[in-house]
Amino acid sequence: MSRIQIGILGATGMVGQRFIQLLHTHPLFEIGALTGSERTAGRTYGEAGGWRLDTPMPASVRDMPILPSDASLDTPLVFSALPSNAAEAAELRLAQAGHIVCSNASTFRMTEDVPLLIPEVNPDHLELIHTQRKRRGWSGAIITNPNCTSTPATMVFRALLDAFGLRRTMIISMQALSGAGYPGVPSYDMVDNVIPYIGGEEPKVEREPQKMLGTLHDGQITPAAFVTSAMCNRVPVLEGHLECISVELERRPPLEDVIAVLREFRALPQELRLPTAPSQPIVVLDGPDRPQIRRDRDTGNGMSTVVGRVRECPILGYKLVVLGHNTLRGAAGGSVLNAELLVAQGYLG
Amino acid sequence: MSRIQIGILGATGMVGQRFIQLLHTHPLFEIGALTGSERTAGRTYGEAGGWRLDTPMPASVRDMPILPSDASLDTPLVFSALPSNAAEAAELRLAQAGHIVCSNASTFRMTEDVPLLIPEVNPDHLELIHTQRKRRGWSGAIITNPNCTSTPATMVFRALLDAFGLRRTMIISMQALSGAGYPGVPSYDMVDNVIPYIGGEEPKVEREPQKMLGTLHDGQITPAAFVTSAMCNRVPVLEGHLECISVELERRPPLEDVIAVLREFRALPQELRLPTAPSQPIVVLDGPDRPQIRRDRDTGNGMSTVVGRVRECPILGYKLVVLGHNTLRGAAGGSVLNAELLVAQGYLG
Amino acid sequence: MSRIQIGILGATGMVGQRFIQLLHTHPLFEIGALTGSERTAGRTYGEAGGWRLDTPMPASVRDMPILPSDASLDTPLVFSALPSNAAEAAELRLAQAGHIVCSNASTFRMTEDVPLLIPEVNPDHLELIHTQRKRRGWSGAIITNPNCTSTPATMVFRALLDAFGLRRTMIISMQALSGAGYPGVPSYDMVDNVIPYIGGEEPKVEREPQKMLGTLHDGQITPAAFVTSAMCNRVPVLEGHLECISVELERRPPLEDVIAVLREFRALPQELRLPTAPSQPIVVLDGPDRPQIRRDRDTGNGMSTVVGRVRECPILGYKLVVLGHNTLRGAAGGSVLNAELLVAQGYLG
Amino acid sequence: MSRIQIGILGATGMVGQRFIQLLHTHPLFEIGALTGSERTAGRTYGEAGGWRLDTPMPASVRDMPILPSDASLDTPLVFSALPSNAAEAAELRLAQAGHIVCSNASTFRMTEDVPLLIPEVNPDHLELIHTQRKRRGWSGAIITNPNCTSTPATMVFRALLDAFGLRRTMIISMQALSGAGYPGVPSYDMVDNVIPYIGGEEPKVEREPQKMLGTLHDGQITPAAFVTSAMCNRVPVLEGHLECISVELERRPPLEDVIAVLREFRALPQELRLPTAPSQPIVVLDGPDRPQIRRDRDTGNGMSTVVGRVRECPILGYKLVVLGHNTLRGAAGGSVLNAELLVAQGYLG
Repeated sequence: MSRIQIGILGATGMVGQRFIQLLHTHPLFEIGALTGSERTAGRTYGEAGGWRLDTPMPASVRDMPILPSDASLDTPLVFSALPSNAAEAAELRLAQAGHIVCSNASTFRMTEDVPLLIPEVNPDHLELIHTQRKRRGWSGAIITNPNCTSTPATMVFRALLDAFGLRRTMIISMQALSGAGYPGVPSYDMVDNVIPYIGGEEPKVEREPQKMLGTLHDGQITPAAFVTSAMCNRVPVLEGHLECISVELERRPPLEDVIAVLREFRALPQELRLPTAPSQPIVVLDGPDRPQIRRDRDTGNGMSTVVGRVRECPILGYKLVVLGHNTLRGAAGGSVLNAELLVAQGYLG
Repeated sequence: MSRIQIGILGATGMVGQRFIQLLHTHPLFEIGALTGSERTAGRTYGEAGGWRLDTPMPASVRDMPILPSDASLDTPLVFSALPSNAAEAAELRLAQAGHIVCSNASTFRMTEDVPLLIPEVNPDHLELIHTQRKRRGWSGAIITNPNCTSTPATMVFRALLDAFGLRRTMIISMQALSGAGYPGVPSYDMVDNVIPYIGGEEPKVEREPQKMLGTLHDGQITPAAFVTSAMCNRVPVLEGHLECISVELERRPPLEDVIAVLREFRALPQELRLPTAPSQPIVVLDGPDRPQIRRDRDTGNGMSTVVGRVRECPILGYKLVVLGHNTLRGAAGGSVLNAELLVAQGYLG
Repeated sequence: MSRIQIGILGATGMVGQRFIQLLHTHPLFEIGALTGSERTAGRTYGEAGGWRLDTPMPASVRDMPILPSDASLDTPLVFSALPSNAAEAAELRLAQAGHIVCSNASTFRMTEDVPLLIPEVNPDHLELIHTQRKRRGWSGAIITNPNCTSTPATMVFRALLDAFGLRRTMIISMQALSGAGYPGVPSYDMVDNVIPYIGGEEPKVEREPQKMLGTLHDGQITPAAFVTSAMCNRVPVLEGHLECISVELERRPPLEDVIAVLREFRALPQELRLPTAPSQPIVVLDGPDRPQIRRDRDTGNGMSTVVGRVRECPILGYKLVVLGHNTLRGAAGGSVLNAELLVAQGYLG
Repeated sequence: MSRIQIGILGATGMVGQRFIQLLHTHPLFEIGALTGSERTAGRTYGEAGGWRLDTPMPASVRDMPILPSDASLDTPLVFSALPSNAAEAAELRLAQAGHIVCSNASTFRMTEDVPLLIPEVNPDHLELIHTQRKRRGWSGAIITNPNCTSTPATMVFRALLDAFGLRRTMIISMQALSGAGYPGVPSYDMVDNVIPYIGGEEPKVEREPQKMLGTLHDGQITPAAFVTSAMCNRVPVLEGHLECISVELERRPPLEDVIAVLREFRALPQELRLPTAPSQPIVVLDGPDRPQIRRDRDTGNGMSTVVGRVRECPILGYKLVVLGHNTLRGAAGGSVLNAELLVAQGYLG
């Protein structure tokens, strides 16, 4: 089977580079187009410079031209790593032109006819595409993946909600530098420091999980009813968001049942054996001091949600530590897995 | 007035060095004796080596002999920077011998006839000394200061409890390396990493504030009734513990009243103008991204509790960010302030 | 005596902030004017935001207006913290208008009629001002201080050259983040990393010391004849440049003589007791592992050059480790000390 | 072909863990025995705890027993990750008992009948084994690999010496934390700091290259005649030693010839296609700011020496930046490659 041609919007940024890293050897997809900013458009990807990842730039993209962001693309599938302000026009234009756009931008995440998708969490929400197409009169589609902090939390909430019901959650995050893009946070601000603030982050974390865990009925999502409070901090690590989470469940299961439910959680991507799906969506570690950001973020190639220290919370009932790789599962990898689900469900090709 | 001679137990460790830094020019106290471990006893303080602070070792201690920890001391006041396992025997022995021991060790913090003291929070608990002396038949005393993470939280709780009542609190901490002593956490564990665990810390944070905010009646403390849930993390910063705190109050004041109560909080040490007391026990910062550990930990010479981002919490009602300097206010500085209160109240000299 | 009014060009950047920190309580100078970029001009200094130092913004500048960089100033003395591209026009204009400009910019450092000055090293070069005034027909003056890496190296070279002659030097530097200004190096580039390159730095370090150690004769400087090779690296520390230096001397003194010469080095600023001059321009540490950047950079309020590990080098004869505070002695503090010398020598007021 | 059984001495330390990581899937070797300290002997490797690497502990060693360090082993080949004080007795005993010991310890590196080996540099020195066996009357052998800082420098020196002759070299290193073992350097010493000293390191770097580049004649090595000066610094990075090196060659080739010689350097391990040998022993990077420690240390699976910024040095003629992975090529990987050469040359099995 020939691979599906894909385009990457905003290919030179941090998330764009992750898309290239994940897609240049992907079994289903083949990079066919790259777009960049005004500054880089017209050059080749190699000339544009600025590769920041610790693995080398794949040779296959070095000579690819960088197209302007308003170029017409002939790839049926497009991944968007655009900043949210630039994403709106570009993604609408491409969906209108019949492309399926898997977007990491926050722009359309909360738009009511746009799926906010984690394949393990709410694969059924893909059906929103029909509503979207009908309402907007286009043949393309926009599908989004959640914020990097919402992603691992929602994975855990899915397992808990299904088993025990979920009422209230508290999320305090310690987030990696790569989440701020590049150049992002100046190093002078981060040596020997923690910054207890990330612009715009907390509202996303307090609302995205509810949409994903909501129910789709008659082309409309009713958000899940639980309440979240989030406090987001920037810490001096490269990749990986660590979250201290407390949850109030509807039932009061023994601790070992909570742990078992997390450990045994499997979902559609595992069943379908999607290429980027980890064998275990949630990995529960036993060590008293795990998960640690550096040591555990690459679990399942950065696609697993890593959990530890599940214990009782005197306020909400249960508390635990959750870790997710923010630029893999929480950004580019999440989008790629979404696209793999689209292929498996027949939306592409 | 001649200065009161003091001894420092465990003078070579991180907290011991902070004691020396704070006391070598203190207006009320004069360093008269230093004790150390078997390894260092017998040498001078300068010979023992291992000064780790970023200000130079004060010349006045360089030639002082390091006494063994079981030496008889002739200083009426003793500060203890002993590790908790070594503290028990030494502190009991010295109190028995008539010394007043201001201890930073955790050993006796929760002992019912031992004051766990923050002068701004519970100066009246000093009266427990009478009970302690009667019950134990000694003329000395043991007074403790709380854990470095409990300290700033309890300062905030005092202000809020008095004004609005306090029901439940959630504390997620990001704690500095110096809190682990020296050598403490290996650097290989802390570059590009956060460790979501600090041995023994969470139970302290969940119980100490209640004792301090409890009421003393007939020589007995009834702990305050509120409940705390704590999650403690180690982050790669040198000094300063940052805490994301949510609180449930008994009343529902407008946000500006909560902020005003924190900002205007003053207490006995400020009235008495104790030498080490900050002019403002709680400093509220307005910047949306403050307090930051490195930039704000030295507020009030490291003796103020720094607060920012006071806002509504959809779960418990209010949330805020709190910062305290862990080896100043949270350790040596806290003990020194306790001793200053003892002097002001006539317990010494 | 009333204090001399001074202006600060580029007052909002990292070096500009250091100027404010040093000058707001200076015994000779009083801040009378601040200039900023187009973005900040017109606001007050407090409104402009972006204070990055760990001590609070002095209250006295909070309400001062930020002037555009082409404003006429009525302060006889001006400190320039402008980036080198902006410095040229502004500094020429102000010198033309009769101001004395103490500049930290690199623009005019190597210009032949402009003093490149370290008061301990080449105070006699101040006389170049007469040449400068005659040649350029202005009543003002431009005086520069050297690059932050050249500064501590040249201090050491002065002492060695005078005592033993100097033939060749090798300088390998490990430089702090603050040297790159703000925002400077992205944190994503500096966690768990060293960058073996700083744009434009090595040529400065290879040429500035020779000018400063050159001889002034008939209004012209003949550079010192020794040769330098420099390799500059960026390391993840906040402040302080550490340099591994090897030197070939003309004579072959015993090691203890080299150490004694460094330790006993004193110069004009110490004689004149200039307010910002450290009592010891060079501090030699004995510890086998000193100087360390964080622990020793503040020696002499960041104005001393700190030396350690003086020993034999099998290639060039002698090697040692040298540390200087890059934004204090190596930038703003250096400029302020230059201005103090100007006052003491009667060039001002 | 069945794989050769190997033992690992000191298997629980940092280098021991690297041996396990490299050997548990090795095509020629199979882990047959592990030894540990008194503290861990008797437990299984999984029980001993303390796995520190960022990849998980291989399942195949989890249940292996840890033997005491004086145990008899039945593996013909033994890798030693013992600290140098423990290495002497253990390695002598095992060589006496007929084992071939590939040691990473410094103990015997400079011993005259022990090969100090980098397969790309001095494979002919393996013949020293015959001298060693004759002199010591044993059938085993001890082979050592050099210090982690000497390793990449010597690789570069080999290429340069062969092409142009080598007279003098200056090495200033910035070394990773893992080089200090575990727990190694306390984190409180390394945040916002550089330490310009590593105990015992500089003499090794100044003498090991000469032995390796020496000539073996009649069972005796005559060290190469060039002189080295080393200054070693500890910087806050996890893995990878960066070195600023200047070299004086016997000839004065144009710069491009120097670069070409480095880039084209190939040696016996590449010819023999030894499993752990990188395809390019020296990789020359073109970027003006490379090699960077974090981004380039894993080049060639951490087995390549990475070079950049080759340029003229006004003192010694040429200077360049060199990077090597200290616990892979500079420790465990170096030993494994040595063992692979032993197999290829018929010394084993």
